[in-house]
Amino acid sequence: MMPNPTAAILIIGDEILTGRTREGNAHFLAGKLVEHGITCREIRVVPDDNDVIVAAVRELSASHDHLFTSGGIGPTHDDITADAVAEAMGATLDVREDARLILAEHYAARGVEFTAARLRMARIPEGAELIDNPVSGAPGFSLTNVHVMAGVPNIFQAMVEGLLPKLTGGAPLISRNWQVMVAEASVADELREIAGRFPDLSIGSYPFVQEGQYGTNLVTRGTDPEQVEAGWQALKAAFPEGK
Amino acid sequence: MMPNPTAAILIIGDEILTGRTREGNAHFLAGKLVEHGITCREIRVVPDDNDVIVAAVRELSASHDHLFTSGGIGPTHDDITADAVAEAMGATLDVREDARLILAEHYAARGVEFTAARLRMARIPEGAELIDNPVSGAPGFSLTNVHVMAGVPNIFQAMVEGLLPKLTGGAPLISRNWQVMVAEASVADELREIAGRFPDLSIGSYPFVQEGQYGTNLVTRGTDPEQVEAGWQALKAAFPEGK
Repeated sequence: MMPNPTAAILIIGDEILTGRTREGNAHFLAGKLVEHGITCREIRVVPDDNDVIVAAVRELSASHDHLFTSGGIGPTHDDITADAVAEAMGATLDVREDARLILAEHYAARGVEFTAARLRMARIPEGAELIDNPVSGAPGFSLTNVHVMAGVPNIFQAMVEGLLPKLTGGAPLISRNWQVMVAEASVADELREIAGRFPDLSIGSYPFVQEGQYGTNLVTRGTDPEQVEAGWQALKAAFPEGK
Repeated sequence: MMPNPTAAILIIGDEILTGRTREGNAHFLAGKLVEHGITCREIRVVPDDNDVIVAAVRELSASHDHLFTSGGIGPTHDDITADAVAEAMGATLDVREDARLILAEHYAARGVEFTAARLRMARIPEGAELIDNPVSGAPGFSLTNVHVMAGVPNIFQAMVEGLLPKLTGGAPLISRNWQVMVAEASVADELREIAGRFPDLSIGSYPFVQEGQYGTNLVTRGTDPEQVEAGWQALKAAFPEGK
């Protein structure tokens, strides 16, 4: 079996690093990538700083099959992602006629003035493919393996839904959960033994407290459905008190 | 004015990268760092992979005044953060008597057996200072500028509350918000002009949709209260329609 394509997610914005906004796009995309058979290896959040974005785009696009970015493609002065991605990938950037037409039609249909600030959102790197924005018109873009999307959650999600079917995925990662009402330490020995027996699975344990009682979610993950099922059966057999 | 100390946050865990868990510790800590006058420059999420964690700890601890980690210090086989941090920082790691005593007392007081799996949580790098865990006993630790904390949210939060007062902070970052009920593009020109007038402030705009109407939050951030106030007054004067 071919290994799945790999990906990193780059979230751009001071508002995340200052605690103003609780980021949710990475969580949304991570779940979608699992279903699509793309392995997310890193999520990184960086500030609205051109040099930092350029360095991160270069590093993460070179070390993964795909890099997805969120944020910084709006109409204001702090929206610098398109410029930084173009610089990182050595592409020129200017208003592109296809993007300008999309925006012109979008605003005309709504009686909204097509200002210079809005025209800024038609600046797309040469050679990039547009990513459709069914919510507010202004497109994202894919430049080689870098997929640049908006930070506003409903726009980001719509762009992901449009983009992912175009990317070649691998085997979806399957996970099954077995919940036991004992502390994590009480399952450690058996869990280590089971993990040793199933080297192709990732077996994790996640403790929680529910109504004052300790519990642990035992999760087995893998791309081979039979292996995942066998690992899950082993967890059930080792901890029959699970509910 | 001295620049504020810088920090990075490293979140460790496959469960975040597979979309199983929506991470919240970074958001919590980012807000606390702002209040404490420490500038968070990066948040990174990596898998439960020793080599990846070692490389990230080396890079981020060298390039920031502080590195805070979350996750991977429990009793099970996939809890490898303490080992990876010790390796990254060139420290030896073994059960430490001070940590063992804390755990022994914690379990004795609750009639819980002190198993080999639980003893694993007393493995602390040589030279590290313990971080108190008032919730479940097992301590975190600070090794030079790397602060290693649990991933379970209520334990992480308790550790942060105990740790932060011991770290030298700078001037707290202050932010003020001005909400206008127009689309982001409509404020872009004035915003750019105001941002140019206040080079020490970070001025951001965050669009939203409320009951079908477009709006934008204009945020001014800085460490000088007078500057932040002046910037906020400039936003109010430019957009008097704000509520």
